[in-house]
Amino acid sequence: MSFGVLLIVVILVVFGAASSARAAENPPLTLARDGFFYVGGKPTVVNGKQYMAGQMYVEYRIPARKTHPYPIIMVHGGTMSGTNYTGTPDGREGWAQYFVRQGYAVYVIDQVGKGRSTHLERTYGPVDLVDSQNSQQRYVAQEKFKLRPQAYLHTQWPGSGEPDDPAVQQLISSQLPAIRDFTKQQFINSEALIALVDKIGSSILLVHSQAGAFGWPVADARPELIKAILAIEPNGPPAYNVEFIGRAGLF
Amino acid sequence: MSFGVLLIVVILVVFGAASSARAAENPPLTLARDGFFYVGGKPTVVNGKQYMAGQMYVEYRIPARKTHPYPIIMVHGGTMSGTNYTGTPDGREGWAQYFVRQGYAVYVIDQVGKGRSTHLERTYGPVDLVDSQNSQQRYVAQEKFKLRPQAYLHTQWPGSGEPDDPAVQQLISSQLPAIRDFTKQQFINSEALIALVDKIGSSILLVHSQAGAFGWPVADARPELIKAILAIEPNGPPAYNVEFIGRAGLF
Repeated sequence: MSFGVLLIVVILVVFGAASSARAAENPPLTLARDGFFYVGGKPTVVNGKQYMAGQMYVEYRIPARKTHPYPIIMVHGGTMSGTNYTGTPDGREGWAQYFVRQGYAVYVIDQVGKGRSTHLERTYGPVDLVDSQNSQQRYVAQEKFKLRPQAYLHTQWPGSGEPDDPAVQQLISSQLPAIRDFTKQQFINSEALIALVDKIGSSILLVHSQAGAFGWPVADARPELIKAILAIEPNGPPAYNVEFIGRAGLF
Repeated sequence: MSFGVLLIVVILVVFGAASSARAAENPPLTLARDGFFYVGGKPTVVNGKQYMAGQMYVEYRIPARKTHPYPIIMVHGGTMSGTNYTGTPDGREGWAQYFVRQGYAVYVIDQVGKGRSTHLERTYGPVDLVDSQNSQQRYVAQEKFKLRPQAYLHTQWPGSGEPDDPAVQQLISSQLPAIRDFTKQQFINSEALIALVDKIGSSILLVHSQAGAFGWPVADARPELIKAILAIEPNGPPAYNVEFIGRAGLF
């Protein structure tokens, strides 16, 4: 971990709480550019046929009035996709639009093997999809399931938290299958993120939850390009439950 | 098929050719709203656990200056995702931004079971991913493979069309696994599109290629809501190779 990297670990009770105003009340969003690209794909042969593998979907929003020098790369956590940052389950704007409004260019990714980043089972291995009750316990209604002592503090879900709550249905609808092998996830996502910063240049890296482990290897590999890491409810190093996987094979 | 529906079948040699200007040269894009939601999900039980199934990811761009009463719903074809409409393989803006600039609200979807619309194998069945050569033959360099008499007319690909062409790499990177059972695809996508027009109201439906078959059942089910169908290089009815699947079980 380079000492040149600013580290901020933020713990939020409700993911998405930063954009508190209803999107409908927001002024227009003016973008210099709105689009997407893929980074990090490499040709790979499976059963004698060639496929692209390892690529990461990246959608970007560049504000017309950009006031900050470094863009923010937003990396979602487990069971989710980039939609974590492009809206909230109850229909408000997400952090992507919020930070664009503050003058930042924003790059939102789908993890390799998820969402618009293609899945190739023979290369990435099997996937798992969490069930709806798992989502209720972990994201929506922690205070009702009491799986941890502080769960009673989880009070900011914007709805009843019951299965018929429209925001619950939106959250559960947005969940995607994930590569089962977490070590593999760390390697392939860090590699693709390195390819992304090599393409777009100096950046701020925002990682959430499961993706907490994805950011540090990128800063280690490109200390001159990662200007800060914002780790939101992160797992993995350096804060707690260190799972050391080493650098071998990645760089 | 309702007689109230305007039918336009457009054959384009190069998909994405309508937006000919480099995006970098475009004026800013001003949106009243930019976000996403899911429609059409239903709880389903698999091996004793509950999941959401059948939902469709919908991203929307509402122009600040909306000058047309009906939004356009953009439905991508086989092997692809909604990215077909949000940019071209060589980095220009897509039809989504183009029509927003013309004053239309635009809704871009990922087909059910693809991209950001979750995949649930035990409900949807197995998926297939096309290999890179298939993409070369069908999309990129038809004139080199000569699989049909008119292939020599395919001359508008914006690059060399060889495997090391950056636009080729972008196109291949964007391809996603698709549900193998095409009949099932037609049912689950038409159902989700009906849920979408029930939510957003009167709309124009734009379908491409494989999705040519998805639009007509929506207009049949909601003739008062589908104001036009734009079928781009469509397969299926009513033009050619009719594969009649009937209405039984869908409505």
